[in-house]
Amino acid sequence: MELSLNQATVKNLTLEQATGLCLRHEIPAIGLWRDRVAELGLARAAAAVHAAGLHVSSLCRGGFFTHADPQARAAALADNRVAVAEAAELGADVLVLVSGGLVPGSRDLGLARRMVADAIGDLVPFAQELGVRLGIEALHPMFCADRCVLSRLGDAVDLARPFPAEVVGVVVDTYHVWWDSQLAGQIDDARGRIACFQLADWVEPLPADPLLGRGHLGDGCIDLAQITAQVLAAGYRGHAEVEIFSQQVWDAPADETAATVRRRFRDQLGGL
Amino acid sequence: MELSLNQATVKNLTLEQATGLCLRHEIPAIGLWRDRVAELGLARAAAAVHAAGLHVSSLCRGGFFTHADPQARAAALADNRVAVAEAAELGADVLVLVSGGLVPGSRDLGLARRMVADAIGDLVPFAQELGVRLGIEALHPMFCADRCVLSRLGDAVDLARPFPAEVVGVVVDTYHVWWDSQLAGQIDDARGRIACFQLADWVEPLPADPLLGRGHLGDGCIDLAQITAQVLAAGYRGHAEVEIFSQQVWDAPADETAATVRRRFRDQLGGL
Repeated sequence: MELSLNQATVKNLTLEQATGLCLRHEIPAIGLWRDRVAELGLARAAAAVHAAGLHVSSLCRGGFFTHADPQARAAALADNRVAVAEAAELGADVLVLVSGGLVPGSRDLGLARRMVADAIGDLVPFAQELGVRLGIEALHPMFCADRCVLSRLGDAVDLARPFPAEVVGVVVDTYHVWWDSQLAGQIDDARGRIACFQLADWVEPLPADPLLGRGHLGDGCIDLAQITAQVLAAGYRGHAEVEIFSQQVWDAPADETAATVRRRFRDQLGGL
Repeated sequence: MELSLNQATVKNLTLEQATGLCLRHEIPAIGLWRDRVAELGLARAAAAVHAAGLHVSSLCRGGFFTHADPQARAAALADNRVAVAEAAELGADVLVLVSGGLVPGSRDLGLARRMVADAIGDLVPFAQELGVRLGIEALHPMFCADRCVLSRLGDAVDLARPFPAEVVGVVVDTYHVWWDSQLAGQIDDARGRIACFQLADWVEPLPADPLLGRGHLGDGCIDLAQITAQVLAAGYRGHAEVEIFSQQVWDAPADETAATVRRRFRDQLGGL
């Protein structure tokens, strides 16, 4: 399994700085974020990563489909079509989709989940036409209300199942799913559909901003080697993308971060 | 369904103050905490709640079984036997058990869960002898690492299943399980085993201390009426215990809190 650096890990860098960092540290792939792509311009961003010889393991992210207002839903769908086109232009392995939380003003999880399913159904033909794979991500249950009503890998697999696996896959992110007593079975169920594998560790205690409680591989309590072995056993042959949202990591010099990412990847998962 | 006030909702009150509060607000039952019982003394605490005519819907709590050191495990078991005896003396419907997190120094969720299962097995004969029902509680996955390796209601039901339902039940706490897309099925699987039903709402955003992100019924995003209906449909006939960990609630005058608890219970769940 080869390493990829997700741009969120070096959030302060521009796309060009991040590609330069990958080259300096011999990291062969990158996970891109749309805001940094837009900052440089799509064509120049695509040219920059290809000139650097970097594989694009993901584009983050589309989704956020859950809106009470039909116009807002239509706007979200339109923006997701733009994201699909960007993923095509960048040659990304997958466009990562974060579903969105509860519909504003509603406590109905079922309604929100149906809205996500409908939106993905709308998006599929366009993604298929452009040869882009969608990757449905489950987020940790602590984000269920405000960011993602899909809280387990199995929830994502259930939404993906009606569609061809090469068009709709799922994202396995260790930070979001590690706690689940039935994770192994859900990874096995995702066989052929794992479109992206993201890694971060769970570091205690949770920080004041619960979005930022991640750490370098090995700094927390997740059995990363076990989950990685399960993902490999389920046939995944893509990159291992390290994605760490952490103020402490963002405050460190980017070259130090990249060196740590590479060393930890080798030390924690090198045997796999 | 009748209301019970869990002492944690009025954390600053002594046991005698809390029983007085229940009487003033015509709340017929109370969920007790061991530290407040110990403060008054077990015999006096039992006398106080019985003199007040209050039903004891739970004693919180036992558990925390996951230790690397065998002596620490034995000490935890011994303390849990004391808690069982306290629950018997107090006439509590259930002794609530919070399992404990990962074993210190270990990333092995399976090991921690086996340790919890073994400890419960050790405790069962003593609980049976004293006529005390144990209630295994699943906590929200954000507490998996440090407090409770049982993250879904189904995890608790799986641990309870080998034992008679009248000795080992489960606790359904809306705050911990609301997000689960498969909750309805798990509540149905818990039929006959629901030993305690606790209610609090999920309030956004999460506070700096993730233990304290709860709110009065109706202040958050949980569909409490739906979950309550499912719990009733699964045959539960005990009390609805309102348990709110919240600095804001703790800072309010206790009589205001009790009045709000009673009003919200009637407004949100009065039709059930």
